[in-house]
Amino acid sequence: MNHPALHDSSLKRPLPAALLSALRALLGERVATSEAVRQHHGKDESAHPHALPDAVIFALTTEEVAQVVKLCKQHRVPLIAFGAGSSVEGHVLAVHGGIALDLTRMNQVLAVNADDLDVTVQAGVTRKQLNQHLHDSGLFFPIDPGADATIGGMAATRASGTNAVRYGTMRENVMGLTVVLADGSKIRTGGRARKSSAGYDLTRLFVGSEGTLGIITEVTLRLYPQPEAVSAAVCAFPDVDQAVRTVIETIQMGVPIARCELLDALTIRAVNRYSKLTLREVPMLLCEFHGTAASVEEQAKTVQDIATAHGGLDFEWATKQEDRTRLWQARHDAYLACMQLRPGNRAVVSDVCVPVSRLAECIAATNQDIAAASMPIPLFGHVGDGNFHLVILVDPDNRHDLIEADAINRRLVMRALKMGGTSTGEHGIGIGKLDFLDAEHGDAVAVMRAIKQTLDPDNLLNPGKTIRI
Amino acid sequence: MNHPALHDSSLKRPLPAALLSALRALLGERVATSEAVRQHHGKDESAHPHALPDAVIFALTTEEVAQVVKLCKQHRVPLIAFGAGSSVEGHVLAVHGGIALDLTRMNQVLAVNADDLDVTVQAGVTRKQLNQHLHDSGLFFPIDPGADATIGGMAATRASGTNAVRYGTMRENVMGLTVVLADGSKIRTGGRARKSSAGYDLTRLFVGSEGTLGIITEVTLRLYPQPEAVSAAVCAFPDVDQAVRTVIETIQMGVPIARCELLDALTIRAVNRYSKLTLREVPMLLCEFHGTAASVEEQAKTVQDIATAHGGLDFEWATKQEDRTRLWQARHDAYLACMQLRPGNRAVVSDVCVPVSRLAECIAATNQDIAAASMPIPLFGHVGDGNFHLVILVDPDNRHDLIEADAINRRLVMRALKMGGTSTGEHGIGIGKLDFLDAEHGDAVAVMRAIKQTLDPDNLLNPGKTIRI
Repeated sequence: MNHPALHDSSLKRPLPAALLSALRALLGERVATSEAVRQHHGKDESAHPHALPDAVIFALTTEEVAQVVKLCKQHRVPLIAFGAGSSVEGHVLAVHGGIALDLTRMNQVLAVNADDLDVTVQAGVTRKQLNQHLHDSGLFFPIDPGADATIGGMAATRASGTNAVRYGTMRENVMGLTVVLADGSKIRTGGRARKSSAGYDLTRLFVGSEGTLGIITEVTLRLYPQPEAVSAAVCAFPDVDQAVRTVIETIQMGVPIARCELLDALTIRAVNRYSKLTLREVPMLLCEFHGTAASVEEQAKTVQDIATAHGGLDFEWATKQEDRTRLWQARHDAYLACMQLRPGNRAVVSDVCVPVSRLAECIAATNQDIAAASMPIPLFGHVGDGNFHLVILVDPDNRHDLIEADAINRRLVMRALKMGGTSTGEHGIGIGKLDFLDAEHGDAVAVMRAIKQTLDPDNLLNPGKTIRI
Repeated sequence: MNHPALHDSSLKRPLPAALLSALRALLGERVATSEAVRQHHGKDESAHPHALPDAVIFALTTEEVAQVVKLCKQHRVPLIAFGAGSSVEGHVLAVHGGIALDLTRMNQVLAVNADDLDVTVQAGVTRKQLNQHLHDSGLFFPIDPGADATIGGMAATRASGTNAVRYGTMRENVMGLTVVLADGSKIRTGGRARKSSAGYDLTRLFVGSEGTLGIITEVTLRLYPQPEAVSAAVCAFPDVDQAVRTVIETIQMGVPIARCELLDALTIRAVNRYSKLTLREVPMLLCEFHGTAASVEEQAKTVQDIATAHGGLDFEWATKQEDRTRLWQARHDAYLACMQLRPGNRAVVSDVCVPVSRLAECIAATNQDIAAASMPIPLFGHVGDGNFHLVILVDPDNRHDLIEADAINRRLVMRALKMGGTSTGEHGIGIGKLDFLDAEHGDAVAVMRAIKQTLDPDNLLNPGKTIRI
């Protein structure tokens, strides 16, 4: 939406026939050029215009990926790693054409090391698949971005989600990677030691690089013991400010809160309508606590005391699974409920993160834009991290909607940056946030560009994403 | 010790007089060439041979650092960032001559953001100074490598220490940096948002880069609430295997242990002698728990149950400060007590980290080397992370001692690597671990080298460290 030039098909070259033949010789029927398959790989969950790859290939091994990279390099054709396609910033769109490399068939869990609380998976394993695999081990992988994304995609976008406040993001939970570089060579980064001071931290360099520095084919992750007990709590607040103040005090008290979500009044209204509930239509805080039975009770009661001191209303908490599910229903239904505010619309989902001390102020200023907007814009987020989203509902065929959404998004991002925040807390740059990288990182962008040019001199790995060359 | 060639002064060029004049014009009396000051900046805490810089300068601002970098570049003279000088792997030795850039006068705490649990400091602030500054805020900075290192030095070496098992290392706790690059330009990396997916993770690239990619001048850190309560526990074990098994089960139970240290029998013997104690001379586990009063009691009791099931003896736990100090005395005295096993000797301190499931096996194999050694070699470590140290006591003037220590160290590192571990858990590569980088990271070293050559094409920033060019 922001960068029509990137979608100009005149920039694209037709796929060389020799490349296609070589790929077919290597992969047989795992090379697709049908419109349907290309369509599926030319879109994501965002409102960004579709951009189809010229072909789609399905790899099974790291070695195959290496061969594909070499062929693409030889023919100077772009290569775009593709997982679940759940990006909301256009990461997988083939804006310069080229080949979509679908990694979802690389879906083996390679090694669970229960004593060491780590696991190594192929990049195409999804987070739900992984947790199903771990179910009987007593362990789990906590990072939950909502969508059932692939672990490779989550690593590539530095994903996080609801329980990053306790467990961190992919940045903290990827221990090592297998990566195919732009020249087709294969490297291993990091390792299985809990910590290391041995050399430059290449793992963290590839985590969040959005397929632009290399293709992640295997990931070693930290795991956690399934908590002995879980409690959930919800509380309504007269305003966002008091809800945020409750969060700040909770964290300052050292309560190891596992999830901490805020839904604004419009989101609650949408949920009431969608799920036939009768929640008070004011901001709502939803918390989850992990620990021993005694500890999760103590945590919930501590938060209740803090919330009460800040005008909290309707505080409820529970430990049983079915009660917790009921309390959290509003959060689980939020996205679909919001989409039903204007059925048939698409969502422009914004994503900023600010120091939590500025969160209430940032939301208050944003609410003025929301009030003036022509479309409904529910707001919710991972308030324990200072991260929140706007769901700007647009008719993708209505140019005015897109322009208005873009303007609201831009003002939000610039506001967050002024407050010491970031243009994207968890969705990534993709193509949607390219305009803001300089504003956020200034002269450091030149270092990022130098690294990109060193590791991918021909700009063939997911070109047009993350950083402008 | 390992690399006499690096210390060959014939590789060094005399300092250009024009550079010295320019530095004096810029910094006045903050340029020192006296033997005493150069001696102080030409050694660290290791047994590596001293290597003096040609001059020492003391910077006060990032801008001064930028000017110094430009002058050194112009004259092609090496520049070595210097903090507390507490490295044990030769990081600050001027093995190619050049200028030591002492940052200890950049010791201002720039901003404490209590609501956001973050702080920004100049690189020369030490961790004890920072915690003193934070004393009344209810917050603290947990990373504790033992020495009162500077925050800049800790960031540069990716330091950690006793409570990394709970709070992570510098990798997890540095939010952003101000860095002067090799061309004298200044960048800011990261920021104050709790999480971000905006661009390549330059913060993590500079953390652990040992002054070879840029000079860190300011650091933004995560802070934590001072725990409401602390409990400590100690327990003796018939063997290391049972102690390690206790640790594994403790972590798998989800006990959020804050510190978890192992001392071997020889270390206990050294402590008994040094501190006139009567501890049972068998492996000892020392734990610390942070949380609410109820939670730290529950944690200690859980560990007691696990320890008892594994033959633990003499289990004691306490919450009062003076009792905790008494229980942990053996750990606090360990290093000095070990040094007194052969008074006047230096320590070659090794530092490996393995997946915790391999820890007992790694220590058992290492104990065979220790038993065969001509010198006493106490062993202790941060067993919750799988990280442990040997303190190999050597007479630095005795070539046989140095050769023997080197051989033991090499065997230890290769053993750790075979077990999926790392050549250095927290001390860094410096010059002492250069030989092992290829063995640990294989082809990924080429990527590290490419990054070094991109960011420091003249190889002037701490040359001869971290990676061979």
